[in-house]
Amino acid sequence: MLELITDPEKIVSVPGLRLGVASANIKYKDRDDLVVVSMPDCAQVAAVFTQNAFCAAPVIIAKRHLSSTQPRCLLINSGNANAGTGQQGIDDALLCCQHLAEQVGCSIEQVLPFSTGVIGEYLPVKKLQKGIVEAANKLQTNGWQTAAKAILTTDTRAKVASVQVDIEGTTITVTGMAKGAGMIRPDMATLLAYVATDANVDAKILRHCLNNSVRSSFNRITVDGDTSTNDSCVLIASGETSIPQIDDIDSNAYYILSKAVGAVCEHLAKAIIRDAEGATKFITINVLQGNSEQECEAVAYTVAQSPLVKTALFASDPNWGRLIMAIGRAGVPGLDTHGVDISINDIEIVRHGVRAKNYTEAKGQAAMQPQEITINISLARGESQVTVWTCDFSYDYVKINAEYRT
Amino acid sequence: MLELITDPEKIVSVPGLRLGVASANIKYKDRDDLVVVSMPDCAQVAAVFTQNAFCAAPVIIAKRHLSSTQPRCLLINSGNANAGTGQQGIDDALLCCQHLAEQVGCSIEQVLPFSTGVIGEYLPVKKLQKGIVEAANKLQTNGWQTAAKAILTTDTRAKVASVQVDIEGTTITVTGMAKGAGMIRPDMATLLAYVATDANVDAKILRHCLNNSVRSSFNRITVDGDTSTNDSCVLIASGETSIPQIDDIDSNAYYILSKAVGAVCEHLAKAIIRDAEGATKFITINVLQGNSEQECEAVAYTVAQSPLVKTALFASDPNWGRLIMAIGRAGVPGLDTHGVDISINDIEIVRHGVRAKNYTEAKGQAAMQPQEITINISLARGESQVTVWTCDFSYDYVKINAEYRT
Repeated sequence: MLELITDPEKIVSVPGLRLGVASANIKYKDRDDLVVVSMPDCAQVAAVFTQNAFCAAPVIIAKRHLSSTQPRCLLINSGNANAGTGQQGIDDALLCCQHLAEQVGCSIEQVLPFSTGVIGEYLPVKKLQKGIVEAANKLQTNGWQTAAKAILTTDTRAKVASVQVDIEGTTITVTGMAKGAGMIRPDMATLLAYVATDANVDAKILRHCLNNSVRSSFNRITVDGDTSTNDSCVLIASGETSIPQIDDIDSNAYYILSKAVGAVCEHLAKAIIRDAEGATKFITINVLQGNSEQECEAVAYTVAQSPLVKTALFASDPNWGRLIMAIGRAGVPGLDTHGVDISINDIEIVRHGVRAKNYTEAKGQAAMQPQEITINISLARGESQVTVWTCDFSYDYVKINAEYRT
Repeated sequence: MLELITDPEKIVSVPGLRLGVASANIKYKDRDDLVVVSMPDCAQVAAVFTQNAFCAAPVIIAKRHLSSTQPRCLLINSGNANAGTGQQGIDDALLCCQHLAEQVGCSIEQVLPFSTGVIGEYLPVKKLQKGIVEAANKLQTNGWQTAAKAILTTDTRAKVASVQVDIEGTTITVTGMAKGAGMIRPDMATLLAYVATDANVDAKILRHCLNNSVRSSFNRITVDGDTSTNDSCVLIASGETSIPQIDDIDSNAYYILSKAVGAVCEHLAKAIIRDAEGATKFITINVLQGNSEQECEAVAYTVAQSPLVKTALFASDPNWGRLIMAIGRAGVPGLDTHGVDISINDIEIVRHGVRAKNYTEAKGQAAMQPQEITINISLARGESQVTVWTCDFSYDYVKINAEYRT
């Protein structure tokens, strides 16, 4: 079991990586809202992006730049998503990238831009350019916690984590940060997440490591089923270490590193759910004994996104009828409901498709009280399983999202 | 244009059909909660049922009985869904069917049972049996409005409508009732809906008429995306008319009748949305110029079910960024976002994938004020179109569903 470091005071900086922040006054007053990350020439970068067809201008540019050269800088802003802004959005983002490239002395293609915030408004370019100068002047290795705060929108807490592992006698660090609280149903990535290591990793292996980690972390959470236009997750290997390059997918070094990256990603993904808009509960949904991962995922997400299940969770109401309703509508072909078992926090609720013999309403109510709830759903038709993390649905979710732009 | 009769005082009874109600005290106090519908020997019946794998005991029995003989009675109760109740649920429903069969003098297979209410509780059989006797003794032709009230659960209003048409010089009536306010994303049918006509219709033609009508009415609405375990929609042709049997799908008589049935179904489906749990707005989503009906439906439902779109509608906030987010995540293969136009109540908001030139926030806010809102989304890639009706997402939806069982 890897030891996660999440205390803001103890987050471990990643040799080679430097972060700087600024208050560019994009939407929020009196707080940082712009981050610059710089990396050394030897760094490798992998990234995954939203599958939303209306992907934002920075996503379009980041993909293009990433495919043309080795990135040297990330430019991240909160308060404005620069999405639904067409050609002007592209032009605006490029102006900002150019400004940063001039500051740090690299080409415009070596800057990857990222934005998060309101969709459909144009970027205040002048404000960003001023912030870019400030942030570039403040680059430092131990800027993770400050940067993690600067990228937040409706989040209430910064999300950072570090893991240190021993590879061939050398300590390797993996540190990451993420933001996200609503419009969360990542599809290949999530809102904004940045993970870095000082390991030296081959580009292809790094992409494999990112995809694998994202699959079981950011791609296994949902707040409201709404996939953002701006989701991006970046994994950087600065290479500022003495151990040789990791270039073999079957090596022990890769195994250790990928476990560490996976642990950081899983922690950050769960942190997003713990900080979800209006959430009062953290829910783990395990779907077991399915025929395929795909059908387990369909059941898990249908349960996780059912407004009726989520309001029952908010009310701590063991209304298991809504669970079977959601399982039943998940589209599992030929599901034999007589095989379905359900338990909540180890209390057996449904056995063979009907209320369990020993179940009582009092037991169900007790099981629903804790803030952390695990729902196990067994389909009794195979050996696949999937875990999805989600939250409940409260008055505050409606309030936050009804008042978001006011 | 057909004239719909929706005034409870003016609902037209259907010759041959008799309805009786009773207060069986199943869950609610001091109100009717049980309905018996009887029909003549010459009646034809078509029905569609939920596709939820956890379909309720009455759905299993109604399907079985319908496939074995000509129904003579419907038995409907509110307050208990008899779903998730396994073999005991089946046995309980059969005991109730048997009791009604004895009262009216038909076989048990000629009774179709329907239930709606809480999932996961056993039917109070003795109470129902007592109610069955009472309802069977009160059968009358003009019982539609009373029956429509008795089948309600969280609904606040009875939903009934009549249409009269002239077929070959004879007046033919179509009258229907429905219930439903939450757990609404019908899939082949919706909660409970009963439509009857005095026309004499061939069984195969009647099924075609029902499927066609349901497709563009009950299968085009969503409150929360949650498909019920108990959805059932029944179309009865009593045959108590002087005009010859309608047995030709290409005949003028069938054309007129299907228009009338379609109009009643559409009215009832919309009435469910108008009475949706916590709803403050009635939303029509038209997706136009799609490549296929399937992709138009995917876009319409993704928008209609997005919690972020629904909370913006509740707040009357023209947050069109959420509309493009939802369109973008609907999974339309190769969608060119530059072709997407969006208008709200005829105010052009998005043109060619970005904010329309003439759009102002003030115009958007004005467009979002009315209680009835029409969102037109044009994909510019084909000639298919789909209309879906939905509602907003309010504090009261959370409240109603957090407190449902308390």
